Amino acid sequence: MMKSEEVMRILENAIRIGKGVIRYGSVASYIPELAKADKNKLGICLYTIDGNQFETGNTEDRFTIQSISKVMALCLALETFGAEFVFDYVGVEPSGEAFNSLVELDNRSNRPFNPMINSGAITVASLLVNHYSIEDMQKYMQDVCEDPEIAVDEAVFQSEMATCARNKAIAYLLKSKEIIDTDVEDSVTFYTKMCSMSVNARDLAMFGLLLANDGVQLSTGKRLISSQTVRMVQTIMLTCGMYDGSGEFALRTGIPTKSGVGGGLLSVSKKKMGIGIYGPSLDKKGNCIAGCELLGYISEALHLHIFDTREWKVEE
Amino acid sequence: MMKSEEVMRILENAIRIGKGVIRYGSVASYIPELAKADKNKLGICLYTIDGNQFETGNTEDRFTIQSISKVMALCLALETFGAEFVFDYVGVEPSGEAFNSLVELDNRSNRPFNPMINSGAITVASLLVNHYSIEDMQKYMQDVCEDPEIAVDEAVFQSEMATCARNKAIAYLLKSKEIIDTDVEDSVTFYTKMCSMSVNARDLAMFGLLLANDGVQLSTGKRLISSQTVRMVQTIMLTCGMYDGSGEFALRTGIPTKSGVGGGLLSVSKKKMGIGIYGPSLDKKGNCIAGCELLGYISEALHLHIFDTREWKVEE
Amino acid sequence: MMKSEEVMRILENAIRIGKGVIRYGSVASYIPELAKADKNKLGICLYTIDGNQFETGNTEDRFTIQSISKVMALCLALETFGAEFVFDYVGVEPSGEAFNSLVELDNRSNRPFNPMINSGAITVASLLVNHYSIEDMQKYMQDVCEDPEIAVDEAVFQSEMATCARNKAIAYLLKSKEIIDTDVEDSVTFYTKMCSMSVNARDLAMFGLLLANDGVQLSTGKRLISSQTVRMVQTIMLTCGMYDGSGEFALRTGIPTKSGVGGGLLSVSKKKMGIGIYGPSLDKKGNCIAGCELLGYISEALHLHIFDTREWKVEE
Amino acid sequence: MMKSEEVMRILENAIRIGKGVIRYGSVASYIPELAKADKNKLGICLYTIDGNQFETGNTEDRFTIQSISKVMALCLALETFGAEFVFDYVGVEPSGEAFNSLVELDNRSNRPFNPMINSGAITVASLLVNHYSIEDMQKYMQDVCEDPEIAVDEAVFQSEMATCARNKAIAYLLKSKEIIDTDVEDSVTFYTKMCSMSVNARDLAMFGLLLANDGVQLSTGKRLISSQTVRMVQTIMLTCGMYDGSGEFALRTGIPTKSGVGGGLLSVSKKKMGIGIYGPSLDKKGNCIAGCELLGYISEALHLHIFDTREWKVEE
Repeated sequence: MMKSEEVMRILENAIRIGKGVIRYGSVASYIPELAKADKNKLGICLYTIDGNQFETGNTEDRFTIQSISKVMALCLALETFGAEFVFDYVGVEPSGEAFNSLVELDNRSNRPFNPMINSGAITVASLLVNHYSIEDMQKYMQDVCEDPEIAVDEAVFQSEMATCARNKAIAYLLKSKEIIDTDVEDSVTFYTKMCSMSVNARDLAMFGLLLANDGVQLSTGKRLISSQTVRMVQTIMLTCGMYDGSGEFALRTGIPTKSGVGGGLLSVSKKKMGIGIYGPSLDKKGNCIAGCELLGYISEALHLHIFDTREWKVEE
Repeated sequence: MMKSEEVMRILENAIRIGKGVIRYGSVASYIPELAKADKNKLGICLYTIDGNQFETGNTEDRFTIQSISKVMALCLALETFGAEFVFDYVGVEPSGEAFNSLVELDNRSNRPFNPMINSGAITVASLLVNHYSIEDMQKYMQDVCEDPEIAVDEAVFQSEMATCARNKAIAYLLKSKEIIDTDVEDSVTFYTKMCSMSVNARDLAMFGLLLANDGVQLSTGKRLISSQTVRMVQTIMLTCGMYDGSGEFALRTGIPTKSGVGGGLLSVSKKKMGIGIYGPSLDKKGNCIAGCELLGYISEALHLHIFDTREWKVEE
Repeated sequence: MMKSEEVMRILENAIRIGKGVIRYGSVASYIPELAKADKNKLGICLYTIDGNQFETGNTEDRFTIQSISKVMALCLALETFGAEFVFDYVGVEPSGEAFNSLVELDNRSNRPFNPMINSGAITVASLLVNHYSIEDMQKYMQDVCEDPEIAVDEAVFQSEMATCARNKAIAYLLKSKEIIDTDVEDSVTFYTKMCSMSVNARDLAMFGLLLANDGVQLSTGKRLISSQTVRMVQTIMLTCGMYDGSGEFALRTGIPTKSGVGGGLLSVSKKKMGIGIYGPSLDKKGNCIAGCELLGYISEALHLHIFDTREWKVEE
Repeated sequence: MMKSEEVMRILENAIRIGKGVIRYGSVASYIPELAKADKNKLGICLYTIDGNQFETGNTEDRFTIQSISKVMALCLALETFGAEFVFDYVGVEPSGEAFNSLVELDNRSNRPFNPMINSGAITVASLLVNHYSIEDMQKYMQDVCEDPEIAVDEAVFQSEMATCARNKAIAYLLKSKEIIDTDVEDSVTFYTKMCSMSVNARDLAMFGLLLANDGVQLSTGKRLISSQTVRMVQTIMLTCGMYDGSGEFALRTGIPTKSGVGGGLLSVSKKKMGIGIYGPSLDKKGNCIAGCELLGYISEALHLHIFDTREWKVEE
């Protein structure tokens, strides 16, 4: 059994461990607006299933959600269209390729490998754009994160649109293969806007808690997402959430996690907690370098590895 | 709470469901000796962590373990050399490629993607061959499966050696890249012999139980495998165990599983049970077609999906 | 020594041979407007360096020049910017890939393999679009083909623009790699317009004669293209002109040739003749099936293989 | 018209130009025995079709023929089995890949792309090994080079056999695809021995002259190779002879050429001359760096580009 002070002590250690590796990473540079981030920022927030919150560091700093929005978009698509329909357009296999790869799409498969890489997420966005406005998507993100402040960061959005040639290449390739049938420009705009939503570490922890609690909002007892969707989304996060570093990350931490190049990390520990992390210094695969390091420590200290057989308890 | 009769009823349903798809698969044909198998065979055995055994169908039929031996070999290598050493030679990323792919090795990486594909397993075998005889390996498999009858099926072994040009190609490629430094012929022979070990569904269930019980033998309370190795092995089975169908299988069943072209399936449900299945009719990716189908049903019926939040209990 | 009647007899044989294989091909179907072509059309025109013209079949039928325009565009780019500049943006290696491949661009090289595949030709178009209007390009084609009637076929142009998602994917990929720095839409429009120019077999034969005569217009003695450009263009036609069938075609005919999916073939026999062929029934690689077949015969009959050591002479 | 003194002056210039770039290359290092070569050596020999010999530098130094033997092996195979049979096993397309690539074989085609890369040449060797001993092959090379001294360099042969894991990987892959049906070890040994034949620049020039003279031995008037084979071999040399640098080399020199990592270059100028070069300093693609440079100069100075329209004549 663990007391609050013990958890806080572990969090403080985690932050120290994370800070120790910040200098080995660097902020995203391919989008000019993201390059302005302060690489020394680091914050972590835990919302546990028994109602506690633990946090330390820069948990209120806002940053763009980027690829973590792929998880929300997938949830919304699965709830709207059903798994069978969605997975007809996008697979669920890890690709062993980088996030922005085109090769795997053109050469090795007839549909994107999975919804956590750009080609898959743009496909999901093209499904959503038929049914939802970007305001609907924003509202959905506000709801699952319980934060009405979530909104498009216009500066980042404009910066990304000015440098999204590769995503347009992916989208036109999808179009040419008849995987997306909506307007390419509309789909890329929707995708880029959802990536430009501004969140903080608490928002991610809250969304993580929702998934950890099987899709039921802890505060209200209201089911927001079906059990089946929650199970599928966690599985995909575990196998594909960290791009071509997914396998190693799963081995080490055993925590379903999704990263964004804005510096965010969303982690879920089933029936235990949601975790949100912010740290814009990235490793070579585009994942928050401090967060990956400290999650390894936290997984061991709090017994969060999915194949850990030890008891877990946080008590007042 | 579930009673024994309920579990047996579920197993009977499972067998019925499995039998319904046998005709859509076919036995392995690329190894002449394997082509002789009776595709209508099907058996399943469950060993639960509270000491029960449930089984139905052809659970005593012997077949060659094939790729499932990759799991035992990985366990032995991790316990002998440590994770850091082993994962210096072989990665842990799903590759999105078929089991016998060479391309991913030559083009996309400097080491095999993971130990569940042939290139990775041959690399593991080349580490083992320096320290162990094939008799040692046989003894290890007998121990973890609690079956002293496990032995090389000579007919299958000879048949495989006569048709192993592709594995030799892989091994020589590994040699040329200095990933293996032992004799190529020795490594391929060791690998082929360990794949030719003859087991039954009960053996696989018993080994599954060992992993489900965190590496501790249930009957004796003796630890055979370390917790860390057990966690890593289950993670790799989940992300890479079913070749390029791993992601979809994980999504659907959420049960760490490894298949062999001999028709075997090894499944682990943490703190719940080990499952062994035999059914030589294979799907296009080389996995037991009936077993994959019935595991989907069992996962739902017994709440075995790793991200399932429901209680599980089997009672007398 | 060969007399005119002999040449005409050979041409008649060639047409018969070509017609014999028309049924094994089919007209281009991916562009709706091209699908309307009559697959039984076949025509061939020879302009020899000693001033003779031989022709038979549908040599006056107009069709869109398609990929053959890549040769004119390359000539114009080389003459305008010089070889060093142009080949900094696009390579000269055969790729072994199909005409519309993206993989080779993203995975195997930092620039398009050569100017005869779409990625290379779009790159050349992006260089030209900075200096020339499409009217300039049209004028250039009229000049080198000595046909003032050459103009954009608006129906084909519109049809292609409506189905050019893959070319846009290629162009945006080039943009993302900073290989093209002009506006993507402008470059694709220029490229598509130059492909939509309407020509006949005589036009192609006339342009072939210009190349066969080292870039000097036979009728006026005026040099239109430099010797160096002519040599380079013929080399690239020989090694890369028939997509992933270039090697086999070169082996068999030894005649630098470029095909277009509109059904055209442009062939050059140094110091001997230019050849233009029209036949919209295409083989699987997108080359005029009758033309490829009959060029094999003509090459042998008229001693046109580039490594043929026999004398050649057409006399009155 | 050019006099002998003029040719000699051009050759001296060529050597000077070649020597200027030697320092940018390095000797082959992957075969220990080859690493012993003196990188400053350079020699060139021309045998013209009118019976003259011009040479300068190290034209009597012996070195192993390496990949240039692929040309002789192809000639022998074509003469023995016919083109149709041979090209059923190996293609004639440039691959855009390095000489020792496996990927193109496993991923992009069902047979080796062409006989000038290792996979293709090992396939040709496997055809020959059924009909010829290595002594027969040696005799063939002695005949076409008119040098009875050609023999296996045992030190190089042993050195290569000790480091041929990649070639064995290729051969076993070919075996697994049923492209070769002979014993793998026999085929690799035959291939390695033919690569280990010791020649000098004069030998290569003499073989080049034979090809330049349409397969007829100049001294005796005896036809050694058929016209058809000579045409095909030159075409393949032009399109595939310099590995993934073939296209650029063809553009620049227009001379069918084959390189070997022993430092040799074999060039053919139809109806003009054969050229042999020795210079063990190699560029990054494995081609003699000085030879490639000086051939560019010689091609221009002597009008040897295959698409050059200028007259050529060497007179006493």
